[in-house]
Amino acid sequence: MPTVDPRLMANAIRFLSIDAIERAAEGHQGVPLGMAEIATALYGRHLKFDAADPLWPDRDRVVLSNGHGSMLLYALLYLTGNPRITLDQVKSFREFGSHCAGHPEYDPPAGIEVTTGPLGQGIANAFGMALAEAHLNAKFGSGIVDHHTYAFVGDGCLQEGIGQEVISLAGHLRLGKLVFFWDDNRITDDGGTELSISEDVAERFRVAGWHVQKVDGHDHEAVSNAIAAARGDPRPSMIACRTIIARGIPRLQGLRGGHSARLFPEDLAATRAALDWPHGPFAVPDDVLGAWRAAGSRGVPERAAWRERVLALPPADRALFERIQAGGLPEGWRDVIAAYKTRAAETAPEQPSVQSSGEVVALLTDLFPEMVVACADLEAPTNHKRHLTAFTAEDRNGAYVHCGVREHLMGAMANGMAAHGGVVPLSVTYLAFSDYERPAMRMAALMGLPVRFVFSHDSIGIGKNGPTHQPVEILASLRAMPNMLVLRPADAVETAEAWEIALEHRSGPSTLVFSKQPLPAVRRVHEPGNRVRRGAYVLAEGEGGARRVTLLATGSEVAVALAARERLQAEGVPTAVVSMPCWELFDRQDAAYRDAVLSIGTVRVGVEAALRFGWDQYLGIDGGFVGMTGFGASGPVDRLFEHFGITPEGVVAEVKRRL
Amino acid sequence: MPTVDPRLMANAIRFLSIDAIERAAEGHQGVPLGMAEIATALYGRHLKFDAADPLWPDRDRVVLSNGHGSMLLYALLYLTGNPRITLDQVKSFREFGSHCAGHPEYDPPAGIEVTTGPLGQGIANAFGMALAEAHLNAKFGSGIVDHHTYAFVGDGCLQEGIGQEVISLAGHLRLGKLVFFWDDNRITDDGGTELSISEDVAERFRVAGWHVQKVDGHDHEAVSNAIAAARGDPRPSMIACRTIIARGIPRLQGLRGGHSARLFPEDLAATRAALDWPHGPFAVPDDVLGAWRAAGSRGVPERAAWRERVLALPPADRALFERIQAGGLPEGWRDVIAAYKTRAAETAPEQPSVQSSGEVVALLTDLFPEMVVACADLEAPTNHKRHLTAFTAEDRNGAYVHCGVREHLMGAMANGMAAHGGVVPLSVTYLAFSDYERPAMRMAALMGLPVRFVFSHDSIGIGKNGPTHQPVEILASLRAMPNMLVLRPADAVETAEAWEIALEHRSGPSTLVFSKQPLPAVRRVHEPGNRVRRGAYVLAEGEGGARRVTLLATGSEVAVALAARERLQAEGVPTAVVSMPCWELFDRQDAAYRDAVLSIGTVRVGVEAALRFGWDQYLGIDGGFVGMTGFGASGPVDRLFEHFGITPEGVVAEVKRRL
Repeated sequence: MPTVDPRLMANAIRFLSIDAIERAAEGHQGVPLGMAEIATALYGRHLKFDAADPLWPDRDRVVLSNGHGSMLLYALLYLTGNPRITLDQVKSFREFGSHCAGHPEYDPPAGIEVTTGPLGQGIANAFGMALAEAHLNAKFGSGIVDHHTYAFVGDGCLQEGIGQEVISLAGHLRLGKLVFFWDDNRITDDGGTELSISEDVAERFRVAGWHVQKVDGHDHEAVSNAIAAARGDPRPSMIACRTIIARGIPRLQGLRGGHSARLFPEDLAATRAALDWPHGPFAVPDDVLGAWRAAGSRGVPERAAWRERVLALPPADRALFERIQAGGLPEGWRDVIAAYKTRAAETAPEQPSVQSSGEVVALLTDLFPEMVVACADLEAPTNHKRHLTAFTAEDRNGAYVHCGVREHLMGAMANGMAAHGGVVPLSVTYLAFSDYERPAMRMAALMGLPVRFVFSHDSIGIGKNGPTHQPVEILASLRAMPNMLVLRPADAVETAEAWEIALEHRSGPSTLVFSKQPLPAVRRVHEPGNRVRRGAYVLAEGEGGARRVTLLATGSEVAVALAARERLQAEGVPTAVVSMPCWELFDRQDAAYRDAVLSIGTVRVGVEAALRFGWDQYLGIDGGFVGMTGFGASGPVDRLFEHFGITPEGVVAEVKRRL
Repeated sequence: MPTVDPRLMANAIRFLSIDAIERAAEGHQGVPLGMAEIATALYGRHLKFDAADPLWPDRDRVVLSNGHGSMLLYALLYLTGNPRITLDQVKSFREFGSHCAGHPEYDPPAGIEVTTGPLGQGIANAFGMALAEAHLNAKFGSGIVDHHTYAFVGDGCLQEGIGQEVISLAGHLRLGKLVFFWDDNRITDDGGTELSISEDVAERFRVAGWHVQKVDGHDHEAVSNAIAAARGDPRPSMIACRTIIARGIPRLQGLRGGHSARLFPEDLAATRAALDWPHGPFAVPDDVLGAWRAAGSRGVPERAAWRERVLALPPADRALFERIQAGGLPEGWRDVIAAYKTRAAETAPEQPSVQSSGEVVALLTDLFPEMVVACADLEAPTNHKRHLTAFTAEDRNGAYVHCGVREHLMGAMANGMAAHGGVVPLSVTYLAFSDYERPAMRMAALMGLPVRFVFSHDSIGIGKNGPTHQPVEILASLRAMPNMLVLRPADAVETAEAWEIALEHRSGPSTLVFSKQPLPAVRRVHEPGNRVRRGAYVLAEGEGGARRVTLLATGSEVAVALAARERLQAEGVPTAVVSMPCWELFDRQDAAYRDAVLSIGTVRVGVEAALRFGWDQYLGIDGGFVGMTGFGASGPVDRLFEHFGITPEGVVAEVKRRL
């Protein structure tokens, strides 16, 4: 318990915030000044954490979903004693290279659990964290995993559609350890909230089964009591905190300008006078800082006891817990991949790559008990539903999350699960609907989180459902995203290799793209090495002389290229086929390898049932391309490939125009 | 009023649907069989339409938001006598080239108001239509514009976040002529809705201020009465229709397989027996077809009277109404653009291109009274708020829609407004948040709707707000989208030219991308022609000999390239600068023009504060590039450009490595 007046503790947040914002000449004072008492109640009394060990797995999680209010978080981290967020860092707010960036940037040792800023993402991340906690709690017991997830939430987060997706599914799943603080200040960047909303937001939560409380957000005791009540309720909790934006700045409090209007030295002086804060810039009185630091070390005994409990776990449980916390891979998993590849090379199944994907993942499930599959409303495009039980309000052991038709939440919750740790989330839907998840996929790439985004129905190969469901530009748009691996395997063997890569890739997200239609086997000889790992490789070399033609293809079009090659070879044209399942990995190879694969000087033709956009880097300006030039159409699959000319004949013709 | 038992009329929908689906060997029977009575009540008694004139501007609009149930719509169009949806078309359901595609594809003469399929888009389109109607009703009076917008809505549409965005804002704006039929069948593709939702959906609507009724969706009278009540209520209406999915098919009704399980001849026979429908495939008894055709011509007198009222309008009003219905451009608008360009070339303002954009649009506002600006919660990135009044529940004359933080709805409602006609929607937010709108932008491109998507904050030039708010891959991802013009002008003159192009471009959407930071003027000599129209052009030719270097740049980096050119010229290297504000337009130029601009054989270097992805088509594999290689960072703008090397020095160095 702090022995200092919590109003002083809250004001320490206020002045650190406005001193830093004024120094940076820009920033958002509305949140840190409006939510200072809420934060003080949470960190001062309830939050389970040890500032000295920001990575303690059983810490409570805090997400600042209204990320523009970043100074709130930085002030809290400095005050409680996070080792990385020093006063110098706070003073460098918004400077290049500072840990105190304009918006919080994912940095667990700094106590920044996720990157936030794009509205709504943070609360969906928090949802994912709470889901991961519930699942791990069921697996390891409350002695090992038992923590809450708190989120600071602005009006914008709740206006965004993803906000309702969170409200709806969290209520349905009764994620009781999820607690939101809604900063009900009735002001948005645009003006008063009455410009764009008139519903009772709290009632929306109630309808969805949340525990809702309304408090004065500047009443420390009231907020603290609400937190206690929230923790005691089995439903997810929303604490509607009536606040005054930028509270304390005489010129701006309660007004639209409170959000982010430029602060001047006069504002700082006036605020100091108004709040009776005689201390200089960035100065926090010793007793106040001491109270904050006491809060920061409140969790020390709890963490020590927790550590004892972990050490006392049965060895297998402890090994599993420590492995999944570290994100380590299980023993023997590569053997499973190798065995699948051996069999697939032998049996050469002609089947959809999404089916191959489902087979691979099914085989790995027992080895990866940390795998959690989130799926939008679909008939099991990765075949998971058949061998996983559902995660429900009643059964937290389930590892299959029925997300409903809520792709955006699905992606963002997977980010939260990955940031939480201890689980390996897969997010599964059709490729055409990746656009609905894209804002979350971007955040995964930006944070470098190991989320696996899994997509089926990857091209016009879906046929009659038509152009709405046929990606043509989506591969390009995902390849354009930095720090995202995009894998599009050609058959069962490449699918297994793609999964091997995706599971070992931990410095960022992977996108795995599969076909609905059956694909012939193109890898019929077992090779122990993972050929996909180099991104592109010569699948079939030109024969009967020096290579004259290089066909580059991915996924379902590798077989088309192989068929074209046969015709060209029959006509005496030495033709190679390069399978290119992952551009990003290929780009990392050395120049000698890349040159040998691409073989500049040969006639190069790309083949992909998608747009050419992006392909020129491998084809050159004079290269050819067989693929789509616009959106698809509704019709039978074969008819579509023929109509769009994505056939062996089409490839041969494109080659001959260049020979 | 139909003189035939409406149950028979509904069954006509059922059998046309299952006959077509069985023939196509795939399709979604759940919706047409579950909503047949609802559709019969709507079309049979209430809908204001004349099947012979599907383009009648004052017709009621119908959107099948659960677009997978497309046979419902095709059956209705055929039965009521749409000239394009013949019985042969129904029989060709899902065949290549059929008007009866897998999902409904935008085709106004066929009575298909919008393309639907990706869930949630349709109800947001309907919202936009209702908003356009309310606005035009206020402008022209109820004698000229007075119609309802109805949408068929599945569970998925309401689980999607965009669904709540629609519910929230439609309630706030009291769009009283918007009526939803919720197909409350408790089944989704994944299984029972209880897998993923437990809230009272109807209550969600009530909380947001909707008029909600619950009816038995198979009770024709009850539905009809509910429609009448909905039309009489000033609030938007949701009619929750309790239905049985695939009702009538003994093997599938009420079950998950009802959604889209394959139908067999035995199913058709069993359904015929169960519903006592002795007619052969695709056969509709004369009296039943007659009743449907009577419904299809019910609106003939009403349309004639309407036409008289239009003819009787004061000439100026009539001319305006007819111009905006036809999507025509007003007199004199090009003079405004020309005058702005003349002044900008003279005064050479150094200002953000978003400010120039705001100036241009402000000057055009009086000439384009049909312009409606939808803006997410932002401080007026296109400067509109200052000269437009808000569209509100009380004032329908306003043309500025405060969308709140609901970008996805914003984009999709703009599509609905464009599809409705009579208004020219702009959708405005920051470029980083275009990902939230992207599913709607894709639909605009797919439909070829003339929506203008306007974005500010287009690069690292936003500075300290950091990488969440800094687009680096988004230009590429939008350029990858078929049928989308992406315009990124370099200064005030190019901004005016970009607006001229966007406003005259009606075969698809345009994306206009502007800077937050000030840009120096690069076009200082007035030219009457629109140079942006060719997509790319030589802004400054190499001097002192044959061109050796070609710098290609867009937007804020054109000035960087010009500064680099000065240095290279000073060193005796003839260097040209090509401004490339619109790739898509450049790609349409003839080869001679393109070759002259690109000047293959010179050292080519692209300059853009974004990723190289996509640039290789203009640079070649050996070309250079100065731009981003990953996500941005939080820091001062100048520091960021320096850090990432996007400077004249950086460009000169990149050139010299290749000279």
